[in-house]
Formats: sequence, structure tokens, C-alpha cells
Amino acid sequence: MEILEQLYEGKAKKVFKTSDPDLYMVRYKDDATAFNGAKKGTISEKGIVNNKMSNRLMQQLAEAGIPTHFVEQLSDRETLVKRVKIVPLEVIVRNVAAGSFAQRFGVAEGTPLKQPTLEFCYKNDALNDPMINSYQIMALELATEQELTEIAKIAFAVNAELQKIFAAVNIRLIDFKIECGRLDDGSIILADEISPDTCRLWDATTNDKLDKDRFRRDLGGEVEAYQEVARRLKL
Amino acid sequence: MEILEQLYEGKAKKVFKTSDPDLYMVRYKDDATAFNGAKKGTISEKGIVNNKMSNRLMQQLAEAGIPTHFVEQLSDRETLVKRVKIVPLEVIVRNVAAGSFAQRFGVAEGTPLKQPTLEFCYKNDALNDPMINSYQIMALELATEQELTEIAKIAFAVNAELQKIFAAVNIRLIDFKIECGRLDDGSIILADEISPDTCRLWDATTNDKLDKDRFRRDLGGEVEAYQEVARRLKL
Repeated sequence: MEILEQLYEGKAKKVFKTSDPDLYMVRYKDDATAFNGAKKGTISEKGIVNNKMSNRLMQQLAEAGIPTHFVEQLSDRETLVKRVKIVPLEVIVRNVAAGSFAQRFGVAEGTPLKQPTLEFCYKNDALNDPMINSYQIMALELATEQELTEIAKIAFAVNAELQKIFAAVNIRLIDFKIECGRLDDGSIILADEISPDTCRLWDATTNDKLDKDRFRRDLGGEVEAYQEVARRLKL
Repeated sequence: MEILEQLYEGKAKKVFKTSDPDLYMVRYKDDATAFNGAKKGTISEKGIVNNKMSNRLMQQLAEAGIPTHFVEQLSDRETLVKRVKIVPLEVIVRNVAAGSFAQRFGVAEGTPLKQPTLEFCYKNDALNDPMINSYQIMALELATEQELTEIAKIAFAVNAELQKIFAAVNIRLIDFKIECGRLDDGSIILADEISPDTCRLWDATTNDKLDKDRFRRDLGGEVEAYQEVARRLKL
């Protein structure tokens, strides 16, 4: 199988066609962005951590019965994935108030939520990825009711599995963002990545942030934080 | 029954205790505000139109089986209502894209939606009434799942009835906002008001706006618009 032309360059990854029409190749970059691209930087070897971590976690999620796009890791930064059409929604699950949730609803960061929440944001940079609810998604024909049911099921199942995986290495899963994609047969699978770019991960003893908030909030130590997560997960 | 002390003064109404502990008295004002109180003004006799219109519509909704707080109109501006604890949510139903929906999702105002949408905003002036979804409402314990199911049922039933009532007087119901309240027994009923302050109403032939957008957007003719709605509904 050959790697063919680049299809797309995102903020943190490039996507390439391959000679197999059902497979894409993803290459992870060290580029870091925040606030819809307004803040830009680099986190050394982030691409390697994110690629290995996402692949490891997707394999564990697959073992737990969650369908994912992961096929095969090709190198430190490169992975074969199933070709999907991405559903244009950021799917966010939260266990503890932080970030935009804390701000939007006036809840102190770090407050445990009475139950996990699911929220959708419409992936649209020009609109600044606004929060959108299920009725609005259906009215705008971004996804069907059946697809939303499937996405919600995947999102909460991912939350349950990731909480266990991170708890075992003394990390609290505060919240995370996933994206889902449609296969040709219409079925929905987990796509994109799961990494410290897309999760809030706090040390369970100290509450130290081990994720992209170190970059977003100019806390310093972002390289070390990503490496620490890699070390704990034995990537 | 006596009217006792004022309990609360809102942007468009005052609420008074009465000698019956189960009843409140509402007095409608002509004050108009928009953009979370940033814009202020007066619409002459708005209080009279809104009081009569809300009462008429609530009676028609009650006849259609929807529980409401309406008890008895006392005067042009004053109405007895059931005492409720307001659920701190603005409950918005939309048939056509307009206002914040059009802006948020980049859809041209006036675009009919594929299906009616329901959205909740958290009534909190300090937070600027942010949109909130069902999971977030439950996590913040603003309402239970059962209450949200009941509120959604009421909201869509109100939409179906109001569309018929307005269509009969050549008005398109673009969207509207309701609030619901809890009675002592925990049941949920329609509260607050239904008026050109809380509905977008467009003439079905000309698409002329017959609602508070005339004030919000400095279009002029707001007094005449409210009177025109009153005239068509034969209030």
C-alpha cells in the first residue's frame, strides 16, 4: 500500500490518501493552537505522544467494544485509519467543571459534576464552533437522530473506559473532546484523536494539569506534561 | 381577596402577593428592554396588549390541555396567576431561523427549519443567559430529567396551538420563549407570558415584523405593531 497525496492539513495533523480507497494515513504535527487558532506555538514531540497515545487508547476502546477508526501505527507520527466522513460536531464529555463550562455557567473550575455531561459544538471556525443542541443539529441536517443516539452512546462509553485507564495511572479525566465519522455503510465510529490536546488530565494527587491547558494558559512545562502522560501510560 | 406587598419587579412586570397563599397578582408595565437590559425604552400601552394577549392565549392553550398559571384577569394590566417557583430556564421554540439562532449558526434570517427546535437558556443575567443543554441542566441540578421531559412536551404543544391561532389571523409564528413553573405538588405548568415581547410574529403576507424586534432593531412602529396584533386577535 502506497501513501498518496495530502488531502487536508489541520491544526495538529495532516491527512493523506493511500492506494487503498478505504484507508487514510494521518501524520501528527508538533504544532499547537488554541482559541480557534488565535494562539499558535509548538510543543516538542507532541505529535509523537499524541499519535502513540491515541492509538493505544483506541485499541483499548476497541477491546471494550467501541468502534474506532484505528487500523495500524506506521511510525512514531504516522497511523493508518479508516476513511470516514467526519460528522461536523465536537463531542465533549465532562466529569468536572473546567474551561468553557466553568466560565459559561459560573461554576468554579474543579467542581465535580453531579453526572457526566455531553455537549456538542458545531465545527465551524467562521462561527467559532458554537455550542449546538440535538434539535438544532437535526434542524440544520448535520446529523440524524439515530446518529446522535449512536454518538452519545459512544461518547459515554469512551468516558467510562478512559476514566478507568487514567485512574490506573493516577490521572483524573476532567473532560475530553472526540469526533465521530461515518463509514460508507452509514455506521458511526470514533475518529480523530484522544490525547492531551483533546482531554483535560489532572494528576489525581496534586491536581497538576497534564494537558494542553499548560499551553493555552501559559503555565509552562507543556513538553514535560505530555511526556509525563506518555511515561505513565508506558507508550 | 386582597392584593398584598410587591414581591418582585421584573423588566416588564411586577408581581404581588395576595391574601390567597396560592395566588400571585401580576401587573404588566410598558417598559421595554433588550440585550439583557442594555437597551431601555417604553412602548405605550404594551402592558395592556401583553396582559390581554397572554391571558387569551393561555386560556386557549388550557382548552387544548396545556396546564397554565392563568387564573383570572383583574383589569387591563392586572392578572391573578397561580403561585409557582419558576424553573430558571428560558424555553425557546423556533420554526424559522431568526435572531440569535440565525447569527449563531450562520443561517439567513427567515430560513424555515426542517423541524421545530427547542433550546434552553439558563436564566442568569450575570452570565448573559447562556444556552444550556439537558445534560448540563441536570448536572447543575436546575431541573430533573422528568421535568425537562414535561417542559419539552409543553413547549412543542404550545408551538402547535400557537401556530394555528396565529395562522388564523395571517401571522407566522417564527419563534417564541416561554417559562415554566413548579406548583407545590411538583407538577410543571406554563407560566410567565406569551406576547409580542416573547414571540417573533411576522405578517404572513408581507413578513412585516409585529413584535419586539421593532424596538430591539430600531425599526420604529412598535406601538402600532403591538396594537395590530391586538386588533387581529380581537383582544
